[in-house]
Amino acid sequence: MEKRISGTTGLFTLLGSPVGHSGSPAMYNFSFQQQGLDYAYLAFDVKKDQMAEAMDMLRLFKVRGSNVTMPCKTVAATLVDDLSPAAKIVGAINVIVNDDGKLTGHITDGLGFVRNLKETGVTIQGKKLVVLGAGGAATALQVQCALDGAASISIFNQDDDFYANAEATQAKLKTATPNVDVTVYPLADQAKLKAEIAAADILVNATVVGMKPLDGQSLIDPSWLQSDLVVADTVYNPLKTKLIEDAEATGCTVAPGKGMLLWQGAAAYTLFTGKDMPTDEYQAYEAKQAVKQH
Amino acid sequence: MEKRISGTTGLFTLLGSPVGHSGSPAMYNFSFQQQGLDYAYLAFDVKKDQMAEAMDMLRLFKVRGSNVTMPCKTVAATLVDDLSPAAKIVGAINVIVNDDGKLTGHITDGLGFVRNLKETGVTIQGKKLVVLGAGGAATALQVQCALDGAASISIFNQDDDFYANAEATQAKLKTATPNVDVTVYPLADQAKLKAEIAAADILVNATVVGMKPLDGQSLIDPSWLQSDLVVADTVYNPLKTKLIEDAEATGCTVAPGKGMLLWQGAAAYTLFTGKDMPTDEYQAYEAKQAVKQH
Repeated sequence: MEKRISGTTGLFTLLGSPVGHSGSPAMYNFSFQQQGLDYAYLAFDVKKDQMAEAMDMLRLFKVRGSNVTMPCKTVAATLVDDLSPAAKIVGAINVIVNDDGKLTGHITDGLGFVRNLKETGVTIQGKKLVVLGAGGAATALQVQCALDGAASISIFNQDDDFYANAEATQAKLKTATPNVDVTVYPLADQAKLKAEIAAADILVNATVVGMKPLDGQSLIDPSWLQSDLVVADTVYNPLKTKLIEDAEATGCTVAPGKGMLLWQGAAAYTLFTGKDMPTDEYQAYEAKQAVKQH
Repeated sequence: MEKRISGTTGLFTLLGSPVGHSGSPAMYNFSFQQQGLDYAYLAFDVKKDQMAEAMDMLRLFKVRGSNVTMPCKTVAATLVDDLSPAAKIVGAINVIVNDDGKLTGHITDGLGFVRNLKETGVTIQGKKLVVLGAGGAATALQVQCALDGAASISIFNQDDDFYANAEATQAKLKTATPNVDVTVYPLADQAKLKAEIAAADILVNATVVGMKPLDGQSLIDPSWLQSDLVVADTVYNPLKTKLIEDAEATGCTVAPGKGMLLWQGAAAYTLFTGKDMPTDEYQAYEAKQAVKQH
């Protein structure tokens, strides 16, 4: 540490609230050190109404880049100077790159999702997806899959405030990716959900169901799963949700949420540094740390 | 490094321009790590006219504290919420402590000077000082020595813009420390300078004479020195100025500028953390690093 931070060390930040328990500082600082990059990454607790001022700070202090987390991802998209194509459609960002004072917003959640599937040998192009949920992560991955050439995306959501999000995504993708067939269904239509899953290549849970304290729960009846289905989850706590366990028991290819988290971070790292994140080294390091804590 | 910075790590900063070659990040980060404190210290290049915005940032990002260096020390004193007694008189600060959004400015240059002398067994109280110079460091140490009960301070400065500074310090100390006899003389009055040094306990160079690229130069004729005189310098590059070398050759007790630099930083560290800086450990570490670089 004392050898690494000097007068020329550049700062990267995480902005959002809360941020105290984020794993990002450990992951990025490990990677900077591994690759001998003169950067440090720190987290700052910033509320939505402080984001405009935080943007000024990124410029003033020549902060090289920043991650943005809840609840600031949407407001941040309205404050940067430019947006990546995916961020423009999603209307939210999790990454800001500072090029000499010009701030560009990116969203890497969808990239992380796609890369996580790719690591299991599954590609998106031409595939039929069923996605549960219409929140931030759901929207990001729906947009990225559409941009990456999915054949169709069936979105299921309960009848809550987010249902309109799903319809908005559908409308925006109709313009942005007219060849992708996007439909929205109420989650209550269980017969439709079962039928869509039976016809799908990839099923994705992008709701909080399965995440602590909702662990042990799943929106999907295990009998609807078949072994040729790919099942992905955005939840990474617990590492294996009930849905992932059910899918494994059925013999499905699975992509748990932890990988999506890793790869969205790795995509941000590449935007920040122009380099591939040393993900193997970091995962090995993380596993060793986890053992130490037991 | 990767083990040290987490989502809860607090930031300290150095603000000024330039800052790239500052030794402060290395010194404070070493000390934080030594003492297991969850902080990191980074330098940011900030100009005078950006300091108001930088203050907002210290509050927004809950930066725990900051050092301030040239050319921002005077403007910073006008921007904080409160000033230490010494900082009030000096009108400049090198330390900001952030207590839940309330910023208090301190000046530790004078404290560093006094402590550096103390380390050689020399105290200020009741002493007659001759100080060359009327810039920032000169003013800070003149004020601190007056506050610490010096009997008299004779300030010599050339006939430049800073001469008025010396007169202003004299005027302010007349109010703040009426028992201390402060006088100001033109440096050109060499007979007076020689006489004052002959009567003095402590001679201080607080000008840039002796510093690279003025190394090898001294404002003092070596024949004016006597072995019972204490000779201090604020210049630390080179580590031994011509004045310090002349003083050593005469048998004087000497206090080179490097120690003042260390102790002003240590005083800031205590304001930041409430702890003594591990100065012995840091000096040992620094010496080891210096050897590696040769």
